[in-house]
Amino acid sequence: MNKIINLPFIFRSFIKKITLFLFFMSLTLHAQIDKVEPPFWYAGMQNPELQVLLYGKDIAQYQVTASNGIKITNVKRTENPNYIFVTIDTKKVGATDFVFTFKSNKKETLTQKYSLKKRREKSAQRKSFDSSDMMYLLMPDRFANGNRNNDSQNSTQEKYNRDLPGGRHGGDIEGIIKNLDYISSVGATAIWSTPLCEDNDAAYSYHTYGQSDVYKIDPRYGTNEDYARLAAEMHKRDMKLVMDYVTNHWGIEHWMMKELPTKEWINHFDSYTQTNHKRTVIHDTNASEIDKKIAIDGWFVPTMPDLNLKNPLTLKYLIQNAIWWIEYADLDGFRVDTYNYSDPKGIATWTKSITDEYPNFNIVGEVWMQSQAQMAYWQKDSKIAAIQNYNSYLPSVMDFTLYEAATKVFSEDEGSWEKGIMKLYDNFSNDFLYPNTNNMLIFVENHDTNRINQTYGNDIRKYKMAMTVLATVRGIPQLYYGSEIGMAGDKNKGDADIRQDFPGGWEGDPNNAFVKEGRTPGQSEYFDFTSKLFNWRKAKKVIHSGKMTHYIPENNTYVYFRYNAEETIMVLLNNSNETKTIKTDRFKENRKNFKTGKDVISELTFDITNEIIIEPKSVLILELK
Amino acid sequence: MNKIINLPFIFRSFIKKITLFLFFMSLTLHAQIDKVEPPFWYAGMQNPELQVLLYGKDIAQYQVTASNGIKITNVKRTENPNYIFVTIDTKKVGATDFVFTFKSNKKETLTQKYSLKKRREKSAQRKSFDSSDMMYLLMPDRFANGNRNNDSQNSTQEKYNRDLPGGRHGGDIEGIIKNLDYISSVGATAIWSTPLCEDNDAAYSYHTYGQSDVYKIDPRYGTNEDYARLAAEMHKRDMKLVMDYVTNHWGIEHWMMKELPTKEWINHFDSYTQTNHKRTVIHDTNASEIDKKIAIDGWFVPTMPDLNLKNPLTLKYLIQNAIWWIEYADLDGFRVDTYNYSDPKGIATWTKSITDEYPNFNIVGEVWMQSQAQMAYWQKDSKIAAIQNYNSYLPSVMDFTLYEAATKVFSEDEGSWEKGIMKLYDNFSNDFLYPNTNNMLIFVENHDTNRINQTYGNDIRKYKMAMTVLATVRGIPQLYYGSEIGMAGDKNKGDADIRQDFPGGWEGDPNNAFVKEGRTPGQSEYFDFTSKLFNWRKAKKVIHSGKMTHYIPENNTYVYFRYNAEETIMVLLNNSNETKTIKTDRFKENRKNFKTGKDVISELTFDITNEIIIEPKSVLILELK
Repeated sequence: MNKIINLPFIFRSFIKKITLFLFFMSLTLHAQIDKVEPPFWYAGMQNPELQVLLYGKDIAQYQVTASNGIKITNVKRTENPNYIFVTIDTKKVGATDFVFTFKSNKKETLTQKYSLKKRREKSAQRKSFDSSDMMYLLMPDRFANGNRNNDSQNSTQEKYNRDLPGGRHGGDIEGIIKNLDYISSVGATAIWSTPLCEDNDAAYSYHTYGQSDVYKIDPRYGTNEDYARLAAEMHKRDMKLVMDYVTNHWGIEHWMMKELPTKEWINHFDSYTQTNHKRTVIHDTNASEIDKKIAIDGWFVPTMPDLNLKNPLTLKYLIQNAIWWIEYADLDGFRVDTYNYSDPKGIATWTKSITDEYPNFNIVGEVWMQSQAQMAYWQKDSKIAAIQNYNSYLPSVMDFTLYEAATKVFSEDEGSWEKGIMKLYDNFSNDFLYPNTNNMLIFVENHDTNRINQTYGNDIRKYKMAMTVLATVRGIPQLYYGSEIGMAGDKNKGDADIRQDFPGGWEGDPNNAFVKEGRTPGQSEYFDFTSKLFNWRKAKKVIHSGKMTHYIPENNTYVYFRYNAEETIMVLLNNSNETKTIKTDRFKENRKNFKTGKDVISELTFDITNEIIIEPKSVLILELK
Repeated sequence: MNKIINLPFIFRSFIKKITLFLFFMSLTLHAQIDKVEPPFWYAGMQNPELQVLLYGKDIAQYQVTASNGIKITNVKRTENPNYIFVTIDTKKVGATDFVFTFKSNKKETLTQKYSLKKRREKSAQRKSFDSSDMMYLLMPDRFANGNRNNDSQNSTQEKYNRDLPGGRHGGDIEGIIKNLDYISSVGATAIWSTPLCEDNDAAYSYHTYGQSDVYKIDPRYGTNEDYARLAAEMHKRDMKLVMDYVTNHWGIEHWMMKELPTKEWINHFDSYTQTNHKRTVIHDTNASEIDKKIAIDGWFVPTMPDLNLKNPLTLKYLIQNAIWWIEYADLDGFRVDTYNYSDPKGIATWTKSITDEYPNFNIVGEVWMQSQAQMAYWQKDSKIAAIQNYNSYLPSVMDFTLYEAATKVFSEDEGSWEKGIMKLYDNFSNDFLYPNTNNMLIFVENHDTNRINQTYGNDIRKYKMAMTVLATVRGIPQLYYGSEIGMAGDKNKGDADIRQDFPGGWEGDPNNAFVKEGRTPGQSEYFDFTSKLFNWRKAKKVIHSGKMTHYIPENNTYVYFRYNAEETIMVLLNNSNETKTIKTDRFKENRKNFKTGKDVISELTFDITNEIIIEPKSVLILELK
């Protein structure tokens, strides 16, 4: 019974019917088909080749045919007789149902219904997130508990325990849907939720990066339909849903890990071998082969088997799984976890396969590297990667060097060659290395780092400086849930501390920061600033795609301009502890004949003809007139 | 009189003769030619176009012709009537003497003899320094005083004063020549001397980067002939002479600064403007125009007028001056000071013009940048610079990121992700960014930095580790004079402290470290190690051009291999304070079937089949057998 419950919900009843049917058809029946993945597919994909995995006792011993003239182009058997991979050609086949028939030499016969569904209109041309968006990153278990009935489930091991910092707290998709208007009010136009597919680990499953079924939303978060409904609700609000996809590993509880389709499905060593985390070996011409192998094939942790993207079966499986979710849930983008822990060729093929299907689809990869050159290596059409004839095809990368700078700079009150605000300037001075700086996710924190308000000791002045940078430089700003109300969290205390529950997400929470009247004065100060800033950004093409000119920082102050044919924005950051008078003559290239600047936050108008006085540790975002 | 003394010595008598001749020829004579640059030239250059600068009262008012059928292709006059730039075509003209004749409408006539000399055989194909070399960097005023008679000169302002730390100490070319065998005994095969052309500043002229005549060796160092003799003496010993060339600026006492050929000869601002030192503006797509202008056109210090390489006259002058020295002194290479403080197009043209004449000639540029990508930008055929359609044509760059790492790492006893020996590993993991890592100058100090023995508090163990890295990784190692006998010097105390006199370079020095018997036991320990290491390196093709494989450091130990078809070297660095046992199984790709390794320094043989025990803060350089 357990096995049937483990199946994608959409097939439970179907399989039951099949089982009944087969039972009546033949009393010699020994076999059944327990898993079919993808569970269904779509007609009219750009790549007509579909690889269907079927899992069932001794299935590999059967000969397979398909009805309705569907052409089987390849049948792949592995060393495990319980798996078979059937490739069909869907070219010129419209939306249809058909049947796979499996015959063995013992005259047993199995059948499996399969559907090619109709795609949404213009599915292939779907728009995606871009620099006009602000992305709200949340962890679903910690955001809001919209449905108390799904907190614990029979089918999953770990049960609800909100008292446990690293336990399941009950947050879910319903909680996100209920608070979409709140998220929009912060100024966000997109949501990146950490993974939602089933993670059946016995503990710490709340982070959900150890997935046990990649075709099924974790029942503690809701159903697949709930996830599709989240997307639909977001689209109603002109918001975009970004799925956190994990190509590098699954959870040890994944159903396939009990019985691998092939030893080559995952990466193996003689004994447990952890990745060395040195992704630089990928480009390092001096690197040893063993270090390369351990970096790419080593496991992240013992509970996360490392997927082998060098294996064409696995790679194809992952490509189809990703595309399936785009079609099924109507997704607007992917964020890809641990992007460059996988075989570089494999992950590039995965990425290219998706963007070949959806030319406008954006995918942002976690490529946590030390320098701009190393980061730029991983962006699509990188000239740096081209040195090694490599192309990741990854449209967007996370700007980790900006993160590094922005989480130090505002505590450095003295400016110098290498300290203070110069670090920010230096970061942007390397922009030429990237193929596309507008398509970078910019952030000052995420679910793996110290919270920004921890780093800066809840000094709201520093928070405002950090957010101003995110809201006004090139790229796609990302905010981490709760920082907009001043939430702090210390990575040194463990991950749970940086992933605390959003106040008000649980019935009976004494503090409900989702609503204006529920916020403390301190929370309001954070919220009002953040909301004003990012709502202002929503319509500002000059920020989304304007040019940038920055000036070498002087005395720990930094001035830059964003401009296009229609508009000029002047941003001033005073990172020192003194009031500064900034002469504007130096900026005449950008200042041009503008006379005044209206500050976006205070709405005060400044005369900019000679000088601007700016308070200690503060910012001005001036719309020039 | 002063003016005649200021002329290149080789012309003094010649000019006197001309003056006499003209005096007798015409009593209406009002004018004379005071300067001719280049003073002579060479026949058969690849670029046949020669621009001769002539300086004399109202010279621009004359019409110029040339004898011997020499074709004048261009005559350029500027706003200063005392300069004329005459371009001749030397194509198909052999070595010859000829005469420029200047006629004015007042019937005055001036003549100027000019020579095209014969080049040395195979001058164009001359070899240069490369990764088989070790470069000894010295400051001539501080190395050895070989000729006490030239210590002070009438023609130069600053006189001998060895008691003044920043004064002239009397070191000279003769001192270098006398100690060539010593330099060779250290293991050096090339010398980079800081500049030797005349610097007539009233103070601090000893560093000689503020040149007052770029066609004349400073008389306190010797004569032009002495410089050519230095090269000849070095060539006898199979050593190479590298000139320190300064394209960015001259000294304020340069004769042209009294009366500029044209305002455009140097870079001007409305008031004195210092460079902002931010060379990143050159590649920074966000940089402001004013910041770019100040970086490139701003002056280094008020006493060093910034040369305008955007001016074709200036650029051509500098190209010819450089080529003149190669031919005249028979040079083996250039080191170029402040390479990327000049107009990027101009400096690239300068560099290309020289390497077009001498295809094997090596030029190493000081490009002091923060990251490998920024450094690599400046090396010839950089794929990174190609992003911006730029090519510096500079064959070699100084490896400043290695310098940064190597001057910190050996004090970090604990290894971690970003600390300790990992910094060295990380440096080499970016090698793919460079077009040619073999052609990089690698160093741990120079005349502008703390001395390595200061940085490491004269801990000889750390010195040995640093030197081992220089002697065994890719690139051209550079040693700074005196470190091989343990000299220290603190940059924080001022430049004089890092540029102290080499003990024994002055008659009567109580300590003479140039000879074995003169060295203290401490000096001998430094010297013997250094000498053994770099003399070993001299014949090691496996180091000069072999491949490198390195392994991710573990526990602050770092292991790498250099290898070619003939030989394998295994280098082990234990940067921790504990004895380490390093299992060798991990290295089997490189260890292959080798059983033993003989340490280059101790000459002890180690069994490498299972493990190698290595002392705290020590190195092993094993030749595998």
